[in-house]
Amino acid sequence: MRLSRYFLPILKENPREAEIVSHRLMLRAGMIRQQGAGSFSWLPLGKRVLDKVCRIIREEQDRSGALEIMMPTIQSADLWRESGRYDAYGKEMLRIKDRHERDMLYGPTNEEMVTDIFRAYVKSYKDLPLNLYHIQWKFRDEVRPRFGVMRSREFLMKDAYSFDLDYEGAKEAYHRMFVAYLRTFTRMGLQAIPMRADTGPIGGDLSHEFIILAETGESQVYCHRDYLGFEVPGEDVDFGNAAEIAGIVGKWTTPYAATDEMHDEAAWSAIAGDDKVSARGIEVGHIFHFGEKYSKPMNASVTGPDGKEHFVSMGSYGIGPSRLIAAIIEASHDENGIVWPESISPFDVALINMKSGDTECDRVCNELEAALSAAGKDVLYDDTDQRPGAKFATADLIGLPWQLIVSPRGVAAGEVELKNRKTGERENLSIAAAIARLGGIA
Amino acid sequence: MRLSRYFLPILKENPREAEIVSHRLMLRAGMIRQQGAGSFSWLPLGKRVLDKVCRIIREEQDRSGALEIMMPTIQSADLWRESGRYDAYGKEMLRIKDRHERDMLYGPTNEEMVTDIFRAYVKSYKDLPLNLYHIQWKFRDEVRPRFGVMRSREFLMKDAYSFDLDYEGAKEAYHRMFVAYLRTFTRMGLQAIPMRADTGPIGGDLSHEFIILAETGESQVYCHRDYLGFEVPGEDVDFGNAAEIAGIVGKWTTPYAATDEMHDEAAWSAIAGDDKVSARGIEVGHIFHFGEKYSKPMNASVTGPDGKEHFVSMGSYGIGPSRLIAAIIEASHDENGIVWPESISPFDVALINMKSGDTECDRVCNELEAALSAAGKDVLYDDTDQRPGAKFATADLIGLPWQLIVSPRGVAAGEVELKNRKTGERENLSIAAAIARLGGIA
Repeated sequence: MRLSRYFLPILKENPREAEIVSHRLMLRAGMIRQQGAGSFSWLPLGKRVLDKVCRIIREEQDRSGALEIMMPTIQSADLWRESGRYDAYGKEMLRIKDRHERDMLYGPTNEEMVTDIFRAYVKSYKDLPLNLYHIQWKFRDEVRPRFGVMRSREFLMKDAYSFDLDYEGAKEAYHRMFVAYLRTFTRMGLQAIPMRADTGPIGGDLSHEFIILAETGESQVYCHRDYLGFEVPGEDVDFGNAAEIAGIVGKWTTPYAATDEMHDEAAWSAIAGDDKVSARGIEVGHIFHFGEKYSKPMNASVTGPDGKEHFVSMGSYGIGPSRLIAAIIEASHDENGIVWPESISPFDVALINMKSGDTECDRVCNELEAALSAAGKDVLYDDTDQRPGAKFATADLIGLPWQLIVSPRGVAAGEVELKNRKTGERENLSIAAAIARLGGIA
Repeated sequence: MRLSRYFLPILKENPREAEIVSHRLMLRAGMIRQQGAGSFSWLPLGKRVLDKVCRIIREEQDRSGALEIMMPTIQSADLWRESGRYDAYGKEMLRIKDRHERDMLYGPTNEEMVTDIFRAYVKSYKDLPLNLYHIQWKFRDEVRPRFGVMRSREFLMKDAYSFDLDYEGAKEAYHRMFVAYLRTFTRMGLQAIPMRADTGPIGGDLSHEFIILAETGESQVYCHRDYLGFEVPGEDVDFGNAAEIAGIVGKWTTPYAATDEMHDEAAWSAIAGDDKVSARGIEVGHIFHFGEKYSKPMNASVTGPDGKEHFVSMGSYGIGPSRLIAAIIEASHDENGIVWPESISPFDVALINMKSGDTECDRVCNELEAALSAAGKDVLYDDTDQRPGAKFATADLIGLPWQLIVSPRGVAAGEVELKNRKTGERENLSIAAAIARLGGIA
């Protein structure tokens, strides 16, 4: 993509309304635009990150056996009356009347609707386990939406729902999703630590928040240092092997880890000082077993092997991709801008022509753009007539992992400069070597 | 994907509420489920088709130079007051009040919002042309939603918006989108004919509906037979070459083509009888130049080369992917079910094990599934214990282009049977030959 044909509205000034760094950087980098209170458009650069994040989420949901569907945003109030939540849910629910004065709502979540889908078709334990997910816009009418897409009213959510015959089955479903989440966040370059979360009236221990550490995090979290060294299962992990999956969950839930809310001073003080990690954290995912909470009032049951009807045991599993992107920026930026992990960077390489219009610089840039594109890399080629300083500032701000700098002096020497955005390291390479390195060919 | 682990809720009976064949087949094939009046969930099989359709649309939008963004579904009424449409738009607009009693609405379309994005950032003709699109859910509160996803209230829409300095630029943008649409529909196996549409108070001739022919189509259309033989430009078409693009549009707009609404009996009667094609058609896309209709009231202008401010000249370009899928089924089905064009089929191959549990049949199916998956093909493997007749009926109903049938007798002879869903042709092949044929290796 050539920057001259792209739509990248960089802001030079810090937007006054942005209270946190991710909001500020997303506005400045031209990723998002605010359209109203807690409502954002995703501009081309932001949309690319959103797509990459969703693709990783989807791949790991699919790998774990979940099936993707797409439920509508607008729901009938009747469905929520069945579960009792229509009256219980507060003002955060956006309530709507259609032209026939029917009560509708913009879904803040989808337990009721997915349970309705389930009960319409599934009648036997033989059709279980089942896990249905979708990635769809949700609306929660927060009193004071703030922090950009970290806490907006309209937001994207991946929500998965598992259906099983009994608690044992539901626990296995929960474990699979737990491991899928570990893999999902690792693939995005994040270290996410599962921390036990409140289960409220449901009880039990099947509720975890996945927390990433970031200095600017929203809450205080506590965990054992062991977590920082744990390896995340590879893509050969066998989701069909319940024992293997349970073993991974066991390992990842044994050392101490708790959010402020669930913090236990006694357990914490028993940990050796060097092993204590106390830091700021951001929640990026939540998995939750809620058993028959919806299946019972909504009459979602299957015939079991015993010939009797059983209300299915359910769980829900959420990741907010739009919020996640803000969290990633909170965890990965410096004073010059965003520092994208490679797997979710909007482009792989920023190709910077320091003298657009110079025949040799243009020729080398064209060659690099063509070769890297052919190698499957996404290149953002700054072919504009901005001054070099402005081009460098833009490249740092938007945070692509690699900058490839083409200058008249370098080209005369047959060289280009490669800069690593994260470390700041620079090196000079021949054009062929740069192509080989970035194209992943050599 | 193994059918035993998939969620494919086939209906044996014809659903009473479905008036048209696409609605009936989508319900019966377990592609969609109705959630309320004009509101549908997309089940796994349907979601896969939706994704494939959207991917083709996206690739062709990108190729033509349009840039993808994502605007929110909920919009502020204030924006629509600026254009004057908040009061003008009828009851089809879903009007909402949030918790602070602010007037909002569920976007039925996005001219206002995209114009707002444009005016916030773009100030000079040097940043033009610009074409921004998104694929997002829309809501139109139809009095009587019907025909399934063909005319639902909540529906997916790709809407693109072009911004240019003047009419000449806007015309070139229109031409690019015209050609992108030709390519988009052709890639989906459709023959779409551009027909001049009403421009209302805007005037001019830059408004076309893209119509596919289908016996069950919603309206009568008339065109010259030449269209049926026209070749659609290949992927090497140069969107940067305005003359080339205008030439293609010229060719595709010269012979007579009109919907019922725009039909001109005098021009029609001048065509030789053999060249007249009068048929039923379904609109699958609409492109429209509307000039300064929004830029003027919303004050979206750029500085021109003359140093003066110019209201930008705009156009909009829509395709409804959810509606399009229904249209494709109307155009491509038989008495046994759907017949998917290869490029948008939810899976490439239906692998049918006629005797699940039989060691040899299972072994051969596993081998075929692994080899075809490795070749990049999406295989839906019917490993259930249903009777062969039911498996064949399901495979025909869901309409995958190829059925690969593994029977005890065939396996004993070292053969499998390959059936073409569209033609019904069957042939026996060795396992290696079947892999080579379907994997596209040989």
